Amino acid sequence: MRAFASDNYAGVHPDIMEAIINANSDDMSSYGNDPISEAAKNLFLEHFGKDAKVFFMGTGTATNTLILKHITTSWNSVICADTAHINVDECGSVEAVAGVKIIHAEAVNGKISVESIKPLLFDEKDVHRSQPAVISITQNTELGTVYTLAETKAICDYAHEKGLLVHMDGARLANAAATLGATFKEMTIDCGVDVLSFGGTKNGCMCAEAAVFINPEIGKDFEFVRKQGMQLVSKMRYIGAQFKALLTDELWLKNARRSNELAALLAQKVQGISEVQITRPVEANAVFAIIPAHCIPQLQEKFPFYVWNEATGEVRWMASWSTTEEDIENFVSALKELI
Amino acid sequence: MRAFASDNYAGVHPDIMEAIINANSDDMSSYGNDPISEAAKNLFLEHFGKDAKVFFMGTGTATNTLILKHITTSWNSVICADTAHINVDECGSVEAVAGVKIIHAEAVNGKISVESIKPLLFDEKDVHRSQPAVISITQNTELGTVYTLAETKAICDYAHEKGLLVHMDGARLANAAATLGATFKEMTIDCGVDVLSFGGTKNGCMCAEAAVFINPEIGKDFEFVRKQGMQLVSKMRYIGAQFKALLTDELWLKNARRSNELAALLAQKVQGISEVQITRPVEANAVFAIIPAHCIPQLQEKFPFYVWNEATGEVRWMASWSTTEEDIENFVSALKELI
Amino acid sequence: MRAFASDNYAGVHPDIMEAIINANSDDMSSYGNDPISEAAKNLFLEHFGKDAKVFFMGTGTATNTLILKHITTSWNSVICADTAHINVDECGSVEAVAGVKIIHAEAVNGKISVESIKPLLFDEKDVHRSQPAVISITQNTELGTVYTLAETKAICDYAHEKGLLVHMDGARLANAAATLGATFKEMTIDCGVDVLSFGGTKNGCMCAEAAVFINPEIGKDFEFVRKQGMQLVSKMRYIGAQFKALLTDELWLKNARRSNELAALLAQKVQGISEVQITRPVEANAVFAIIPAHCIPQLQEKFPFYVWNEATGEVRWMASWSTTEEDIENFVSALKELI
Amino acid sequence: MRAFASDNYAGVHPDIMEAIINANSDDMSSYGNDPISEAAKNLFLEHFGKDAKVFFMGTGTATNTLILKHITTSWNSVICADTAHINVDECGSVEAVAGVKIIHAEAVNGKISVESIKPLLFDEKDVHRSQPAVISITQNTELGTVYTLAETKAICDYAHEKGLLVHMDGARLANAAATLGATFKEMTIDCGVDVLSFGGTKNGCMCAEAAVFINPEIGKDFEFVRKQGMQLVSKMRYIGAQFKALLTDELWLKNARRSNELAALLAQKVQGISEVQITRPVEANAVFAIIPAHCIPQLQEKFPFYVWNEATGEVRWMASWSTTEEDIENFVSALKELI
Repeated sequence: MRAFASDNYAGVHPDIMEAIINANSDDMSSYGNDPISEAAKNLFLEHFGKDAKVFFMGTGTATNTLILKHITTSWNSVICADTAHINVDECGSVEAVAGVKIIHAEAVNGKISVESIKPLLFDEKDVHRSQPAVISITQNTELGTVYTLAETKAICDYAHEKGLLVHMDGARLANAAATLGATFKEMTIDCGVDVLSFGGTKNGCMCAEAAVFINPEIGKDFEFVRKQGMQLVSKMRYIGAQFKALLTDELWLKNARRSNELAALLAQKVQGISEVQITRPVEANAVFAIIPAHCIPQLQEKFPFYVWNEATGEVRWMASWSTTEEDIENFVSALKELI
Repeated sequence: MRAFASDNYAGVHPDIMEAIINANSDDMSSYGNDPISEAAKNLFLEHFGKDAKVFFMGTGTATNTLILKHITTSWNSVICADTAHINVDECGSVEAVAGVKIIHAEAVNGKISVESIKPLLFDEKDVHRSQPAVISITQNTELGTVYTLAETKAICDYAHEKGLLVHMDGARLANAAATLGATFKEMTIDCGVDVLSFGGTKNGCMCAEAAVFINPEIGKDFEFVRKQGMQLVSKMRYIGAQFKALLTDELWLKNARRSNELAALLAQKVQGISEVQITRPVEANAVFAIIPAHCIPQLQEKFPFYVWNEATGEVRWMASWSTTEEDIENFVSALKELI
Repeated sequence: MRAFASDNYAGVHPDIMEAIINANSDDMSSYGNDPISEAAKNLFLEHFGKDAKVFFMGTGTATNTLILKHITTSWNSVICADTAHINVDECGSVEAVAGVKIIHAEAVNGKISVESIKPLLFDEKDVHRSQPAVISITQNTELGTVYTLAETKAICDYAHEKGLLVHMDGARLANAAATLGATFKEMTIDCGVDVLSFGGTKNGCMCAEAAVFINPEIGKDFEFVRKQGMQLVSKMRYIGAQFKALLTDELWLKNARRSNELAALLAQKVQGISEVQITRPVEANAVFAIIPAHCIPQLQEKFPFYVWNEATGEVRWMASWSTTEEDIENFVSALKELI
Repeated sequence: MRAFASDNYAGVHPDIMEAIINANSDDMSSYGNDPISEAAKNLFLEHFGKDAKVFFMGTGTATNTLILKHITTSWNSVICADTAHINVDECGSVEAVAGVKIIHAEAVNGKISVESIKPLLFDEKDVHRSQPAVISITQNTELGTVYTLAETKAICDYAHEKGLLVHMDGARLANAAATLGATFKEMTIDCGVDVLSFGGTKNGCMCAEAAVFINPEIGKDFEFVRKQGMQLVSKMRYIGAQFKALLTDELWLKNARRSNELAALLAQKVQGISEVQITRPVEANAVFAIIPAHCIPQLQEKFPFYVWNEATGEVRWMASWSTTEEDIENFVSALKELI
């Protein structure tokens, strides 16, 4: 099967699989107290600062939810875009597990801004209101757009001025880095991001996510939250191995670049088709478009993808590290044929 | 490193690693909608009945906690041994995430009984009391003992008579099966167990646990609890592959038998040493013993293991699928030398 | 002090105080097992049907939150207006205590409709989405408007067609009843409302709220939720006494009519002032208006009231059972003077 | 009815009822921002120090649960006696609402000690274990016994040495004070208690409890927890009025003394009956005894009381502020007759 449904339809990058295989020798301490996990953590510290606190996790939902649980109290709220994964794609995990309220700032193509956050910060200290404590932004966004460094910095500055923290949901951080041509440090630390969900799974891993507390103070004791949050994988070395491979020789960047480039190629190829309307800026590895409704089911059969919005008929096509030029060719041909 | 600390110090069995590697081709539907996960599920149904509801999970803590969350309300309590993993080893996950109270029945070597459960069932319908809803037993127990089929059945019968459900924490179910010489069906369905945490990780997998609702009625809608409970792994095929290999050609039984036999060998070899006192019946893959305190740190350095009880000096030694006769020899030699 | 801030600034109606005093004799069973509470409950059943399940509560927040907790699971969502009390005035209690997600239907003057609810009901059975389970409407609304019987019925019919329940937050139900000239039965049972938060406090009681499960099936076991939800008042007879008085000789209606009439009088008197713009239909006991900003602080000093919206300068004035014609006269005079 | 079931079967003391009536004039700010609540708070500060943070609450369950919620995180545990109200009488509120685990120290007649707490403090910083954070003691206990000042101080000293906080459940604090002949300050501040549930309801109030953070630091922001915890009563002045009366002219002490004296009288009178065996030290307002089983139902019919332990046939008789010498006479006569 070749699919454009999601970058999580792709398999595991060969280099990462090799690292997993190599980790499989002898007994090793469990729960992350092993040399492979240690080495992987150190690679993270090179990117996010030697004081950062890094915790490997099993799923992106857990990473987002448990971070938010840890940095809020039950009477806080989290500000995000209405399209944010934490709001619409995690089955209410933030409310039910983190026990915290979500409120929305208006978003344009998945991006919120200081201007859209401002109206939400009122009634400070009124006990009848949940008190906003965190601004959560997704980089790149669920709509395939990327916050510029300046945009991220402006949000962080405003948040800190108001006493709030900034969480970045970086399930696809590598793709955003590739787009921006920026280092992880420039995208996060230098902008003022406090804590990060770092995604490996969609970028070629099997199952590897990390909670990265750039501000180490707020990461204190997160090990208890991770364990209680049911994310302390016993044979952690295999997650460590994935990250070690991903962060070696810039594999993360190669994978991200590849998927971004193939999405760009796809966008370019369909732009010429008059019946196809690209609906969002193509800034990472996703293409959103409106295509003739009658083509959708047949095209999906050959190349699975999601209808993003049943009402408007907008569809989403995602490239991954494993997508090939040939896949794009075949897909566009099939689309043209159906039109 | 060769260790007797836990069966989760072992690596991944070669057959299971091979299955993981073989699963790594092409795009595949995520979240478990792939043919490998489907095939693995069908193998489960062969053991647990075609109506069982099976959900793959990332950790044992999650499996226990989310099952208990799903089959209770917030004003219920769960009855278990005080040594139960859900009580002492999951950092309060049951209380905090499942939101349910734990109460203890008295246990002998980790096993509770109808007699010890009886005194806890009173004040039915008194709103001031949490209402017991589930009896949770661990098979085999945290103390390396095994419930006989008759013991399990007696607890299930009593539970059902009183309107309670029975959950079996089977993180090491295969070891118990090997001990009992019984099929999974005989140990669970035939005894009346309602829902099961099935463990693969400690039996040679990388990261593979399953919630098995033998009584399908109570498993309804668990897919939402799993997702919200942050356990819906996106590239599920790799968990599916592990289970498929584990349940093929009785690999589960071979691995369990091997670890049980090596624990028995270890017990036999240390029994002759007068300074060593075995403290629990050795019925599965764990040996509990009291040894001279001065030997512990040096022995741990060579072969990591846990001190189970700081007060009494009781230690735990666990064998795994990867333990060898040579490991046992070396360990016993080292122990003798230190004594 | 004479205030227009909220109907909860008013004291206790003399008839209700007298009932409290009369309840104060001899020992009596606690936790609601007393004859006064029994009698009060029976009065509720006359209004809401003999099968209704009625539970007395201490606060309106608790009534809303615990009802919603009881009729949802953690992976459900509740649909309401963005201005709903459960959304903005309860410090995140629904998310934190009921553990359920809130989503908003677009509202006009605080009222939602079938049309605004429809776009929220999609992705049924998609595990990534919280599954809507309840529509919650406030009668009368936080903006002083009243759902017509037809509007309520339309929402209930649609909800039931879609398998959802309808909760009515009736903190000011009596005021809505007075406006509609309808019985409680006509406003709730006959429209299809499933469960009701019935407010006594704002209508002349000291502290008396009730959870009324019109559909008794969904109220089963709520006594445990109330106790665990910290709302089982021990000397319940004093809440029973309040409700008994409120539901005797239509005191509830007299109090509601009075406050509605005085709000109407206030609206009528300020309508003539050109600098005052009434912003919402005046349908119950609240008047919303925009007045010259410079008048607000001084007017508040004499007659406390709330600024509803800092951005637009909209203010809220509420009448209560204890408001007098003289209060209105004095208030309007003061307002005119300041303008 | 005259009852020995609980001190919450009693009505409201006349002085307190008068205070409620006197509070019922004019409009007043809601949510505790009124002069009566202010005055009552100041009386609290006289007892508990001018920096204490005091919050009025509706129920004792809420006071205990929300205090524990506020001073713990989800991965903490609370140490208490197995008979503690928070453990067995609040329907799992601590686990479900505070989300925290309860563990038991062995108790003698309801009292725990440093010796019994010690074995629970191990595995510090082990992520698999809930980390103990609070020791909660009930003064006087659920078994009618009273901690001496030295016992309380020893527990507090040990707790603070280990980095834990001490919560005192003082639902009947006044009774303990009467027994000890100590001031509130001597019983709490001087011993090192950090936070207190102060009970008024059982001592003659209608519905008045308070969370008293003696250590103001840990009470910071509790106002949000109270509101979200559904305990911010709108017409708070009526709770304020109760406390103001209770803390004026030592009414609290008079009421407590009276109930203690009548329990002592009851104990003295039944001590002579050979078929009656008093089972616990009578140190406050409760008498525990074993009486012939056949007498219980008939005696309960005349004078309601609880069977404390179905297995042993132990019963509990409680005196309240409203119990009279005549009640005792009549009760003992009836008991003698039945024997």
